[in-house]
Amino acid sequence: MKIKCSKSNLLSALNIVSKAVSTKTTMPILECILIEVYADKIKLTANDLELGIETILDGDVVEMGRIAIEAKIFTDIIRKLPDSEVFIESTEDYKTIIRCEKSKFSIPSKSGDDFTELPEIEKGKGISISQFTLKEVIRQTIFSISDNENNKLMTGELFEVKDGKLTVVSLDGHRISMRNVEIDSNIEDTKVVVPGKTLSDLSKIIDGGVDDMVNIYFSDRHILFEFEDTLVVSRLIEGEYFKIVQMLSMDHKIKINVNNKEFLNCIDRASLLIKESDKKPIVMSIKNDNIMYLKVDTLMGSMNEEIEINKEGDELIIGFNPRFLMDVLRVIDDEDITVYMRDSKSPCIIKNDAEDYIYVILPVNINADAY
Amino acid sequence: MKIKCSKSNLLSALNIVSKAVSTKTTMPILECILIEVYADKIKLTANDLELGIETILDGDVVEMGRIAIEAKIFTDIIRKLPDSEVFIESTEDYKTIIRCEKSKFSIPSKSGDDFTELPEIEKGKGISISQFTLKEVIRQTIFSISDNENNKLMTGELFEVKDGKLTVVSLDGHRISMRNVEIDSNIEDTKVVVPGKTLSDLSKIIDGGVDDMVNIYFSDRHILFEFEDTLVVSRLIEGEYFKIVQMLSMDHKIKINVNNKEFLNCIDRASLLIKESDKKPIVMSIKNDNIMYLKVDTLMGSMNEEIEINKEGDELIIGFNPRFLMDVLRVIDDEDITVYMRDSKSPCIIKNDAEDYIYVILPVNINADAY
Repeated sequence: MKIKCSKSNLLSALNIVSKAVSTKTTMPILECILIEVYADKIKLTANDLELGIETILDGDVVEMGRIAIEAKIFTDIIRKLPDSEVFIESTEDYKTIIRCEKSKFSIPSKSGDDFTELPEIEKGKGISISQFTLKEVIRQTIFSISDNENNKLMTGELFEVKDGKLTVVSLDGHRISMRNVEIDSNIEDTKVVVPGKTLSDLSKIIDGGVDDMVNIYFSDRHILFEFEDTLVVSRLIEGEYFKIVQMLSMDHKIKINVNNKEFLNCIDRASLLIKESDKKPIVMSIKNDNIMYLKVDTLMGSMNEEIEINKEGDELIIGFNPRFLMDVLRVIDDEDITVYMRDSKSPCIIKNDAEDYIYVILPVNINADAY
Repeated sequence: MKIKCSKSNLLSALNIVSKAVSTKTTMPILECILIEVYADKIKLTANDLELGIETILDGDVVEMGRIAIEAKIFTDIIRKLPDSEVFIESTEDYKTIIRCEKSKFSIPSKSGDDFTELPEIEKGKGISISQFTLKEVIRQTIFSISDNENNKLMTGELFEVKDGKLTVVSLDGHRISMRNVEIDSNIEDTKVVVPGKTLSDLSKIIDGGVDDMVNIYFSDRHILFEFEDTLVVSRLIEGEYFKIVQMLSMDHKIKINVNNKEFLNCIDRASLLIKESDKKPIVMSIKNDNIMYLKVDTLMGSMNEEIEINKEGDELIIGFNPRFLMDVLRVIDDEDITVYMRDSKSPCIIKNDAEDYIYVILPVNINADAY
């Protein structure tokens, strides 16, 4: 195996595949990146058995072959090389020689034959979506997955394709996040649950261009994302996702309109007085004078603030975990948001009229008489 | 106590004094900032008994008085307020009310009378130096203090004033850093040891302007830095600093000139193969062909590199801890540096002709035959 390429191309390719390198494993081969050199192309692959990424490296083939190199030291070395041409060569005794200008590194490596190939996914059943949109829907939902491995389905996100629409859902038992985007697709209805880790890694390696597309293909056990010279293959989480339809609508009794940024900044300030551990809520008193009175009272101190709102319906006193509200407000780009409520025990729903987004948050029990 | 000021002025002042707030203490008053309101000025003070900082806040006095407020929550709240006018008021029962636009916070506070005043330092014996220069000499020496509290003197830096010159020295048993700067002074010779923590905190709060001056005053037990509206008072470390004169000069047998950046980048790359724990050196072979051959060989791999040098004197093979070399090369602004050496057991000295800087580094024992 012998190749020549620019340092910058190599580093970009390594940064992409590195996301699928295992960091906690007892199998050293999973900590490696496979370099495969064919007659006409150079391919880099990493695979932690959940997530696999391969990408084509733009470089010159000198001699075909394959070698597996420990990802961390390899990437560290390439990063520190001068911005120049890099020559990489493997020896018969599984050493990899890296040359750049007057610098020469030699590091131990492994036979490429020990590497686990990525599963083959048939590119039959697929949709296409812009990198920008995919990156956005991940950002706008990923915060409400659960990190509790006891309920595996909650650690992933539902990707549902139906009626020319992609719906992405995450939930953790206290809240639900849903985004709907129009897509070009005439495939049959499809429902899969994608691991949260896959999605957060993916959103780090897609550039997010509006005109750059990602093709997404589904198989029974895997999802494949294809963009530019890169393939990302991930296992799916098996099982039936939660039925959420009835949780997304309710007969609301109160509907308020509020400036998103003003509301967010106020909750952000209030949350200074709340330790995650003591589970104190921020209490919102919605009054007929079209003012929402926000209040926090803890051992650290108290805060009161007023925000102008547009209100339809009854008065209400309701308490929320401030972090849950902030997570949602941060990912809504609209200047004003609409919040639907029923009573102090029912969840609030934040959505726009087109239902591009629907967020549901359960309230915290409070003694309304005290406020 | 009642004042009015802009959020930004208050936040700047808090960021300055916060450096002297104690974070690990059993005395809650040391975690506070004292606000003292006089007829004509507002003063903020923090004091962890080693380091004390006071600064004048630009604002309006409404009512005189003094109060001590827990620094962290106070600073957090101010940071999150809208960029507007802030009103602060203390109540009879030691509560502090903070108002800004429609937001009102109330936090518990303490009597200002419990706060420990800063020691009074007579401003008799002093020198003046630009903020830029002071910040630079700290940056260029602070890395070689020791964090070993067993030898208290090594955790500080020598500040010596003599013959119109300020000399700043740090050492940790393996290396010595010295910077010399010309100053305006006709005070008697002075030698003090300033705690490293004081210097690193100080360099964070001085802006570093070339035309902005810092006045430095010395007393038997304290050093006082005065700039703009701020006073920084620190205890000194007591004891006689190390005699280093004979370590700073030697009859060298080899003198090399090398490009600083090229040398630094090469060592930086090489250090990837060296774990701090296994104490492997980078080995430099200085040959008569005016090339320095650098070599590292560890379990992680090996590296060889060549750098062109200008050499006077013998050939030499010598090994160093790569971090010690990098620390020095990073803080020298000269394009080329000069390194003086004697043999593989004697320290190397890196200095310029004017001796603005002198750095001494002990080598690592190596078996030269192996290289």
